Amino acid sequence: MKRMQLLLLVGIMVFIPALAFASGSSHAETQTALVIQVGIVLFAVKLGGILAQRLKIPTVLGELSAGIVIGPFALGGLALPGFPHGLFGSLAPAMDIPVSPELYGIATIASIILLFVSGLETDLRLFIKYSLAGGLVGLGGVILAFAGGDLFGVLVLGGGFMDPRNLFFGIMSTATSVGITARILSDRKKMDSPEGVTILAAAVFDDVLGIVVLAVVLGIASATSLGGSAGIAWSRVGVIAARAFGIWLGATVIGLVLSKRIAGFLKSFKHASAFSILALGLALVVSGFFEKEGLAMIIGAYVMGLSLSKTDISHIIIEKIHVLYEFFVPIFFAVMGMLVDVRQFASPVVLLGGLAFTALGIVTKLVGCGVPALFAGFNARGALRIGAGMIPRGEVALIIAGIGVSGGILDPGSFGMAIMMTLLTTLIAPFGLTAALRVPGSGTRKPTSGGDSRTIDFDFPSDDVAILVTDTMTHQLQSEGFFVRTMDIENGIALVRKDEISFSMRLEGIRLTAQATDENLPILQAAVFDAVATLNQSFGKLKDDFDPSSIRHEVSHETAPLDKAEAKAI
Amino acid sequence: MKRMQLLLLVGIMVFIPALAFASGSSHAETQTALVIQVGIVLFAVKLGGILAQRLKIPTVLGELSAGIVIGPFALGGLALPGFPHGLFGSLAPAMDIPVSPELYGIATIASIILLFVSGLETDLRLFIKYSLAGGLVGLGGVILAFAGGDLFGVLVLGGGFMDPRNLFFGIMSTATSVGITARILSDRKKMDSPEGVTILAAAVFDDVLGIVVLAVVLGIASATSLGGSAGIAWSRVGVIAARAFGIWLGATVIGLVLSKRIAGFLKSFKHASAFSILALGLALVVSGFFEKEGLAMIIGAYVMGLSLSKTDISHIIIEKIHVLYEFFVPIFFAVMGMLVDVRQFASPVVLLGGLAFTALGIVTKLVGCGVPALFAGFNARGALRIGAGMIPRGEVALIIAGIGVSGGILDPGSFGMAIMMTLLTTLIAPFGLTAALRVPGSGTRKPTSGGDSRTIDFDFPSDDVAILVTDTMTHQLQSEGFFVRTMDIENGIALVRKDEISFSMRLEGIRLTAQATDENLPILQAAVFDAVATLNQSFGKLKDDFDPSSIRHEVSHETAPLDKAEAKAI
Repeated sequence: MKRMQLLLLVGIMVFIPALAFASGSSHAETQTALVIQVGIVLFAVKLGGILAQRLKIPTVLGELSAGIVIGPFALGGLALPGFPHGLFGSLAPAMDIPVSPELYGIATIASIILLFVSGLETDLRLFIKYSLAGGLVGLGGVILAFAGGDLFGVLVLGGGFMDPRNLFFGIMSTATSVGITARILSDRKKMDSPEGVTILAAAVFDDVLGIVVLAVVLGIASATSLGGSAGIAWSRVGVIAARAFGIWLGATVIGLVLSKRIAGFLKSFKHASAFSILALGLALVVSGFFEKEGLAMIIGAYVMGLSLSKTDISHIIIEKIHVLYEFFVPIFFAVMGMLVDVRQFASPVVLLGGLAFTALGIVTKLVGCGVPALFAGFNARGALRIGAGMIPRGEVALIIAGIGVSGGILDPGSFGMAIMMTLLTTLIAPFGLTAALRVPGSGTRKPTSGGDSRTIDFDFPSDDVAILVTDTMTHQLQSEGFFVRTMDIENGIALVRKDEISFSMRLEGIRLTAQATDENLPILQAAVFDAVATLNQSFGKLKDDFDPSSIRHEVSHETAPLDKAEAKAI
Repeated sequence: MKRMQLLLLVGIMVFIPALAFASGSSHAETQTALVIQVGIVLFAVKLGGILAQRLKIPTVLGELSAGIVIGPFALGGLALPGFPHGLFGSLAPAMDIPVSPELYGIATIASIILLFVSGLETDLRLFIKYSLAGGLVGLGGVILAFAGGDLFGVLVLGGGFMDPRNLFFGIMSTATSVGITARILSDRKKMDSPEGVTILAAAVFDDVLGIVVLAVVLGIASATSLGGSAGIAWSRVGVIAARAFGIWLGATVIGLVLSKRIAGFLKSFKHASAFSILALGLALVVSGFFEKEGLAMIIGAYVMGLSLSKTDISHIIIEKIHVLYEFFVPIFFAVMGMLVDVRQFASPVVLLGGLAFTALGIVTKLVGCGVPALFAGFNARGALRIGAGMIPRGEVALIIAGIGVSGGILDPGSFGMAIMMTLLTTLIAPFGLTAALRVPGSGTRKPTSGGDSRTIDFDFPSDDVAILVTDTMTHQLQSEGFFVRTMDIENGIALVRKDEISFSMRLEGIRLTAQATDENLPILQAAVFDAVATLNQSFGKLKDDFDPSSIRHEVSHETAPLDKAEAKAI
């Protein structure tokens, strides 16, 4: 069946377009191309994702590679009946970017969804509470990676440190994508180890700092590209950087101050899916506003998400827009893959440059995150694990590379190097991290009490039941003062933490896999049990209320509202 | 709070864009405009929908009107700082359509989602089983409405009956949108009356016939527009019509024959949301293929939906892509509103023409559906109710008008008349139907046993619980041989039927409202009770399984899979 499934997928992708022939006006053609492209992309990314899973490499690599393979520089550029320029070939060859603006538009919306969710998941209280180790590790990694990327640009492309192209190499190196690390930690049962917890906290810092750096750099880049490619007065750079930082800070503060009011406004639309979509609408408008102010859209999306992150609707929004995420985000990765001009890799400069950029990206995070970890109670083993966990780059690097190439700042060769770095760091990091985790022994100077975590699987009768139990459990844990942070939305991995207690959850279809050390295992089991018991009680109550023999007398020609008291039961 | 909510909405829509100023390359500008536009549209349609609800008119009118108001010919055309052509003004004035191709692309995907879901909801067994009355009513309405629309075109625009413009007026008149009728029947507790049930069955015929007529007409239209506007040999028209019909029939038969295999293929992707998105991907590809074959995309989307409608995953797909529906579809209605050039209504031809087209649209459905009803056991009162219920046009008329205007077949004046007809029939039908329902007395010749239906509300603790119970109930009813047909996806209205038993359900947030006559009330109550009891039992079993005190011994360093037997319990 598995083989059959892959064959069918390939069959659909190859034959359906081959059957078609051209027709219609240019408008209809554009729209038809968009529809077919989106359909094909949805299948291609799924195929890429499945292949990646089978090769035991991160899904995102499969999705990105699927984009490269079906893109305009590979299969998508081959002429087919009805598609003289290929399925993904450009209709207007003069365009700056090699995919249609309509398809790119979907990818743009996807990038906003990505960063909006990333902001929603950022737990600022966690940021403040576990700030020392995480802050040091995050800050070290961001500073060194930025400096390394910028230096790489200076050495390879020439120009000064303030050259927009070089600054772009700096920010592309900066943002760690912690999703893959979370998946490996979860696989190796290390989510709640001191290393795992520190990586989590560092990732929050990394996100926040990365956005600040991006804001500042974009301000500088737009100023220097306006004022000529060479030089610009340092005082002017300072003003521009301050302005960009000021807009970011102002928006974040306003967002946080107004967060309750915004949440209240959104909640006044009652239905959860309605207000979740409006929250996304707000993120879209704010993103556009940031872009108009010379910052990037994703900064606006992140700020909007961050503003709502500490409200009680943040988890509801994440849950409700999950299907939008699943629809849009793989299209984003595929489109980024499509932008890769594979011919560029024939050039030794691009190929060797990409390898060098990758090496630099690995070393700067290993050192930038590992050394501060040594000062935060970890030994060399632990520092290596933390450093390795912070290596993978992901969506943010891709979005910034996309901004660079579509804005004309990065040439196709530079874009190729950036994609290589993203692909390779994401590919290498899991092996490095796994190897570092395999080395036996504690990663902290003072040996910690817990050993390996244990895993329990809870199988539920259906997806819906599994989601309901997990949501109920999340709400109950939060009301008891636990932090619940989603680490990897695609795989439903979350870390739960309160003081010394921590455990992790991973929801896949009907199965909830939970991990905890021996001490925390009873707390975890009790949490699942409580959620199920609450639901059982709630349904028991409903059953009594809805018993036909007892409610017969209540029925009238009007309505017979039943007990609404239990509406607050969960 | 309500007033506050509206004020804030207006505030957001007015001030945020006013704060922004222009920047960036043309690519970045296009993408920024798209993001801001989508964000604003999401709020505008919500505002329009709320206003419509408050005015007690159908939501879709509010959404369409919101599009007109914020569109390029009204507020959206006013210059703002950063938007010299207005927020929705065209960047390239030479385009055939007044909205950007990127935004139109979102609307195109929305139209495919609409028709895909419509196909998924079409219950072919119901079509076959209750065919006499429904078939007569549906067929009569389609034939007369098509003839009326075509004749209107001939009289107003000139040209022959085979002129593409006139054929377009024919198909725009054809498709009834039964959602609004379902809502009114539900409000008036008449969903399971003989009239309600007949309208439901007729709507299935109307959908299927409407798609067939559309396929044939598009074939003819493309042939005649290629061969000159005036004449074409009738024999050639016959061949073309036969080819279009053949493609539709072939695709439908292939789809139905392969339905189990397609469903099996989709299910092999395991996660419900993953395969639901891939099902939509398949619909997108098939839609593009239909367009390339000279038919409309929506025909492909409908055929794909129809193919999957009788599989066990149709309800899962509808449920999972519901958030995509909620995100995309209102954008579709708004974009259709934006295409309306309000200045056209200054022309008496358009204004009076639109009124005449509306009147014809009303009369043809009243007579075309009402007269056959007289031959199917209804008296004049019942025939009037059925005719009135079949009047509203909706998304299909709009999509076809959109195809006409973007393909250059319809001029802005004709498009204006089509929008007027859609707006007014949707606006008038509810009043007519409500008035016809208010007239006391049975609508059938032989008085039926049941009187008015009774209503029971079931309030659940949360949205998620309400959805879970409704889904469980739906599955249980289907396994007992009931037909469960979703009538109005936005308002979650479904009609349940098996032989002489029928009742309706409406899920709004945490409340499930059910309607049935006295005889059927116990069946309905038992169905809800059974679903809740099943869930209660299921959670009770889970609670026992997950009891920490009993599972302690099962925990190991590996996994301790719990009883999977209950995975099939629901």
